[in-house]
Amino acid sequence: MSTTTKKAIAVIAGIGNGTGVGASSARLFSKCGYRIALIARNPEHLRALADEINTAGGEAEPFPIKSYGATDVQAAFSSITSHFPSSEIRVAIYNAGEGTFKRFFEVTDEDIERSTTTGVVGPFAFSRAAITAFKNNHFSDHIKHPDEGARKRGTLIFTGATASLRGNSFTSIFSVTKFAVRSLSQSLNKEFGPENIHVAHSIIDGGILTDRSRAMKNDPQWEKNADARLHPDSVAKAYKYLVGQDSSAFTWELDLRPAQEKW
Amino acid sequence: MSTTTKKAIAVIAGIGNGTGVGASSARLFSKCGYRIALIARNPEHLRALADEINTAGGEAEPFPIKSYGATDVQAAFSSITSHFPSSEIRVAIYNAGEGTFKRFFEVTDEDIERSTTTGVVGPFAFSRAAITAFKNNHFSDHIKHPDEGARKRGTLIFTGATASLRGNSFTSIFSVTKFAVRSLSQSLNKEFGPENIHVAHSIIDGGILTDRSRAMKNDPQWEKNADARLHPDSVAKAYKYLVGQDSSAFTWELDLRPAQEKW
Amino acid sequence: MSTTTKKAIAVIAGIGNGTGVGASSARLFSKCGYRIALIARNPEHLRALADEINTAGGEAEPFPIKSYGATDVQAAFSSITSHFPSSEIRVAIYNAGEGTFKRFFEVTDEDIERSTTTGVVGPFAFSRAAITAFKNNHFSDHIKHPDEGARKRGTLIFTGATASLRGNSFTSIFSVTKFAVRSLSQSLNKEFGPENIHVAHSIIDGGILTDRSRAMKNDPQWEKNADARLHPDSVAKAYKYLVGQDSSAFTWELDLRPAQEKW
Amino acid sequence: MSTTTKKAIAVIAGIGNGTGVGASSARLFSKCGYRIALIARNPEHLRALADEINTAGGEAEPFPIKSYGATDVQAAFSSITSHFPSSEIRVAIYNAGEGTFKRFFEVTDEDIERSTTTGVVGPFAFSRAAITAFKNNHFSDHIKHPDEGARKRGTLIFTGATASLRGNSFTSIFSVTKFAVRSLSQSLNKEFGPENIHVAHSIIDGGILTDRSRAMKNDPQWEKNADARLHPDSVAKAYKYLVGQDSSAFTWELDLRPAQEKW
Repeated sequence: MSTTTKKAIAVIAGIGNGTGVGASSARLFSKCGYRIALIARNPEHLRALADEINTAGGEAEPFPIKSYGATDVQAAFSSITSHFPSSEIRVAIYNAGEGTFKRFFEVTDEDIERSTTTGVVGPFAFSRAAITAFKNNHFSDHIKHPDEGARKRGTLIFTGATASLRGNSFTSIFSVTKFAVRSLSQSLNKEFGPENIHVAHSIIDGGILTDRSRAMKNDPQWEKNADARLHPDSVAKAYKYLVGQDSSAFTWELDLRPAQEKW
Repeated sequence: MSTTTKKAIAVIAGIGNGTGVGASSARLFSKCGYRIALIARNPEHLRALADEINTAGGEAEPFPIKSYGATDVQAAFSSITSHFPSSEIRVAIYNAGEGTFKRFFEVTDEDIERSTTTGVVGPFAFSRAAITAFKNNHFSDHIKHPDEGARKRGTLIFTGATASLRGNSFTSIFSVTKFAVRSLSQSLNKEFGPENIHVAHSIIDGGILTDRSRAMKNDPQWEKNADARLHPDSVAKAYKYLVGQDSSAFTWELDLRPAQEKW
Repeated sequence: MSTTTKKAIAVIAGIGNGTGVGASSARLFSKCGYRIALIARNPEHLRALADEINTAGGEAEPFPIKSYGATDVQAAFSSITSHFPSSEIRVAIYNAGEGTFKRFFEVTDEDIERSTTTGVVGPFAFSRAAITAFKNNHFSDHIKHPDEGARKRGTLIFTGATASLRGNSFTSIFSVTKFAVRSLSQSLNKEFGPENIHVAHSIIDGGILTDRSRAMKNDPQWEKNADARLHPDSVAKAYKYLVGQDSSAFTWELDLRPAQEKW
Repeated sequence: MSTTTKKAIAVIAGIGNGTGVGASSARLFSKCGYRIALIARNPEHLRALADEINTAGGEAEPFPIKSYGATDVQAAFSSITSHFPSSEIRVAIYNAGEGTFKRFFEVTDEDIERSTTTGVVGPFAFSRAAITAFKNNHFSDHIKHPDEGARKRGTLIFTGATASLRGNSFTSIFSVTKFAVRSLSQSLNKEFGPENIHVAHSIIDGGILTDRSRAMKNDPQWEKNADARLHPDSVAKAYKYLVGQDSSAFTWELDLRPAQEKW
């Protein structure tokens, strides 16, 4: 079985400060031979993660954006294509979001504006660009990228949360965006599955071990207990598995939580 | 059991051309003794429905808005309070929405903008104004409005759709807003239930008999078959039932579909 | 609009000790003019509730069964038909169930046996008998029972619980039966809706005020707080509402919980 | 990192005629080094599959049972433990079920009896035996079986279907058992996750390519179209992935369907 001569690109949007799911995904797909295109709003964190991956022998490039508005996202994808010639975008992960937890009457108009940009406008723009790119890819049985499922032209993954399934006090605006993303991922799965484009959604149903959660919890027991919190590398492995699914058995949605999670 | 001397207002947002759920709700709550405040973007339809209700012996007033942006919605509620002195807002129904059915690549930035305004920004603004009003209402056992459940300070109802539960091809943007509204209604139910404020969500899972659906279907058999399509008056009765629930047993969500619906 | 000369029967299975949802439903439908057929395993409680209803001016009759096995349930329905001549079964409520809450390794084979009898075999037998009876009823617009929705031949309601939606520790066997009943109610709703037979399911998502819960909680504050626990009369009103739905807008499922419930 | 000296056993219940998910799982786990214990009611199919696996260099043994009653299932597990000394049960897959598709009034008491045995009694018995076995396994970071996730004492997987999520006409009894299994898997996931025992559930949402489906469909186009039907080997890969999840990120449920499935 021959493989295409083009190298595969994984585009990852939303990397926080480089300690969460987006960053772990970038590292894992880099190790699997993908070129890594990093999109986020903070150029320093982007640069640092790209440097780290490149130092480790990978090929990563930061594509900072001002916001997840349609124009900025589209421009980032154009830059990605220019930056990596002889390459194909095969994986796209949308991991961005505003983690706004407030009581309803504390949610400001500005919170709503920012949340809908990152949680509705951004996912549409990112999906448009990613699926447009996938549509240029071949999907014959004879051409596939290593580590990618057979008969597949691309995989688009959205990171969801507990709030994707349930609205709660304190999550009125956060949950709205998470429900929105879940819905979009389902519509896209149904519309583009027949074109061998795989759209999936993960439900991260528990606390992830990141710099932010470490600082917030300040609980060394929790950090050390590998059964009590999600490690971002384990989530990245799930994404890797989804990319590896062949088109005979696509998963739209899976949940992920630590063994000891109460749910 | 004495009742308050203040008259009850039902605020209804979204009335289409006066033949759907919003209009049926307005007529039914008017017959039950509520003053009716109508909010929508089309002033002619608003005026016509208000006239119809007033001619039938009710008290209805139109409050046209330019958009469902926060400022316009808040202004409408202020006008309602001024217009109906010695009255209390006891019922608020959010029935607005953009029925945009398009394949994903046909959804424009402007569709997304309009849809998030009506489907995210509007619901937040409407909920803020309605719940703020409800918080001014008493909720002693001894003071209640006729036809309203005991120990209740107000009922806020959102109209959902099949697309509230499932994203589909052709519903990428529509479903995003419907998922968003469903999520918001659940968050609000949880946050404000303890204050005896009831937030509910209906799933309209079938075709409603309106002028628009009549014209689109152009199928006299369907129109005549009372078991095959949702009559907006039947939906209004469901809303009336929800308003009548006492705080010992609130429903967050119910589905409604014709007996013959395939689902 | 003429009404049928036959009187309507409501069959209610599962009445505990006469202080819960089944008993409240029996009282309410009796007040609405229905003849009441009571099915349960405890003959004393059955007799006491029937006496109470008859003393209050209603017509109720107990039909004790040994178990919810198919033969016993079918025999009970035959007795009901014989006992109430010139009557039609129009409402059937299945409220029976084993409230078995145990850790998984404490669930015995006998628990599983009893639970599947009440939670799977019984619902099938009850549905068969009820729907068979409904199929004998007319459903013209001109013939309907008071308090019943137009164009309807009968309403079958199942009482569900939080455990209908989520399996939990301590609910492995209870939840299995509750999921099973929910599934059955959905299948039946889809299969028999087109015959104007309405099958519905309620999710009782909170503690109900019964003799049992009073004794278990032993918390006078909780008993008195009408916003903190479900009153069985409020649930009965919901069932009454479902029976009143016309076939233009059937509800399959609604949830019911106290205003102050954390969920 | 050292590994335990004990060999890992995968127990698989329900193998049809050896062309479906159970058989593919047996083959795949055998290739990964597991000893394979096959449980089913048809001894010929069991024998044939065991022979096939053994001929290919694996170690498989059939454990035929009369029914999925508790006694038979427990006896099978006892035989498995005796048959494979110096081994540990690390994986258990419950794939059995009655595929009974009938209109409601065609479902017989015997259908209900058989379905509850395979769909309720069997899953309880299988889970008891599997989890009891898992509780004997170590779960230190330093002892794990190849291909298995870290800090894990065992993985129990149930095969679900579209009918696990929705009751339909024709699925009244089938769906009842599938809802039941889903519920049980969720309760067990919550109860035993904290003991590093992983319980998962798959939703097979589409037609699987088996001898039976080939014969029923008789559609060579469908068989050849690798994007239109689930290949059982692809499902087996999903099970392999679940077994490989570490206890930082367990999936309870994932769905699987062909790229071209309408859903």
